[in-house]
Amino acid sequence: MRHLVITIGCEYGAKGNAIGRKIAEDLNIKFYNRDLVDEIIEEVGIPKEIMEKVEEGGTIAGKGAEGDVRGSFSKYADLTDRAIHVQKQIIRKLAEKESCVIIGRSADYILKDTKDIDLLRAFIYAPDEVRIHNIMESHNLSEKDAKILLLEKDKRYHKRHLALTGSNRGDRHNRDILMNSSYLGIEGTAEYLEELIRRKFGSEEE
Amino acid sequence: MRHLVITIGCEYGAKGNAIGRKIAEDLNIKFYNRDLVDEIIEEVGIPKEIMEKVEEGGTIAGKGAEGDVRGSFSKYADLTDRAIHVQKQIIRKLAEKESCVIIGRSADYILKDTKDIDLLRAFIYAPDEVRIHNIMESHNLSEKDAKILLLEKDKRYHKRHLALTGSNRGDRHNRDILMNSSYLGIEGTAEYLEELIRRKFGSEEE
Repeated sequence: MRHLVITIGCEYGAKGNAIGRKIAEDLNIKFYNRDLVDEIIEEVGIPKEIMEKVEEGGTIAGKGAEGDVRGSFSKYADLTDRAIHVQKQIIRKLAEKESCVIIGRSADYILKDTKDIDLLRAFIYAPDEVRIHNIMESHNLSEKDAKILLLEKDKRYHKRHLALTGSNRGDRHNRDILMNSSYLGIEGTAEYLEELIRRKFGSEEE
Repeated sequence: MRHLVITIGCEYGAKGNAIGRKIAEDLNIKFYNRDLVDEIIEEVGIPKEIMEKVEEGGTIAGKGAEGDVRGSFSKYADLTDRAIHVQKQIIRKLAEKESCVIIGRSADYILKDTKDIDLLRAFIYAPDEVRIHNIMESHNLSEKDAKILLLEKDKRYHKRHLALTGSNRGDRHNRDILMNSSYLGIEGTAEYLEELIRRKFGSEEE
């Protein structure tokens, strides 16, 4: 049976998580944010610290190549490969199981050739000043600290996406639509994306 | 009086022109494609050949710096600056005058700080295989020739955009929305963008 999977990549602070949560609520389907995906990955035996190392992508190989003996480098690389493999498998399993919204974790890339689901791959971004404002509000940070966090997260997410997909983060070619969330706001953007789903797949409930 | 201006940047072969034309027809507003903008620029005294050189952006300075004497390089640079200035002025005038759709010509960047108009800045893209198919059909070309044209146009548009705006072409941060035109098709994409305009600015006719 075909069902609907919406992947939402987003810039840190652009409110992609809130938009995805509202879409899942409105359509009454499952919602997997980053933490939930990570928890499932941990359940099948890849510890969070390994996934965090995987997040840093390029850096791992770099470290190994520089300092470690050949043996431990290979072991480390295997573990990385395994973690990436597990992440891909789990995203695919979640998508196959039932209608859902999946935030981040390169799900757009992982699912790009999937044929048996109705798929919408969205990316949410916003001007830096809006993201900084959002981060200040969400985490009760000063403007200066919000900017530091923004830069750090951009760098980290970008590296991770590049390591996993070989393409730049936010690359439009892995997405069906990219939206500036400050144009219509959180609720407006969610509803406009729901409208896209209706236009593409009809309004039939699962 | 506020009115509506829609700028549509697009990848060659992604059907942004056809989408823009349909939006202008449906909303009954002016439609300026690239050629029309160029004609107006030519009318005010910047010959087409100069605008074409301006299109090549970086290349001009490169040539001057390599081979020409300092005097002629300066003259050339002045002319380039003037042509860019005129293009910016004309895009601004068109946008100030009345509701319209403007295709390409970095109008999204030129109008980014305009306050007196209702502005939607869209970018249309599509997978390479779809673009190649579109180019083959529009220009009656073989697949091989369509690919050559695609690569050449991508390179040229990218250079031009970089020269004029300092940012990469397709950079999401100068746009409110980026859409893969093959997701809903030409008519579907146009209608979905009209829906965005209604949601943002209401359905009031001018």
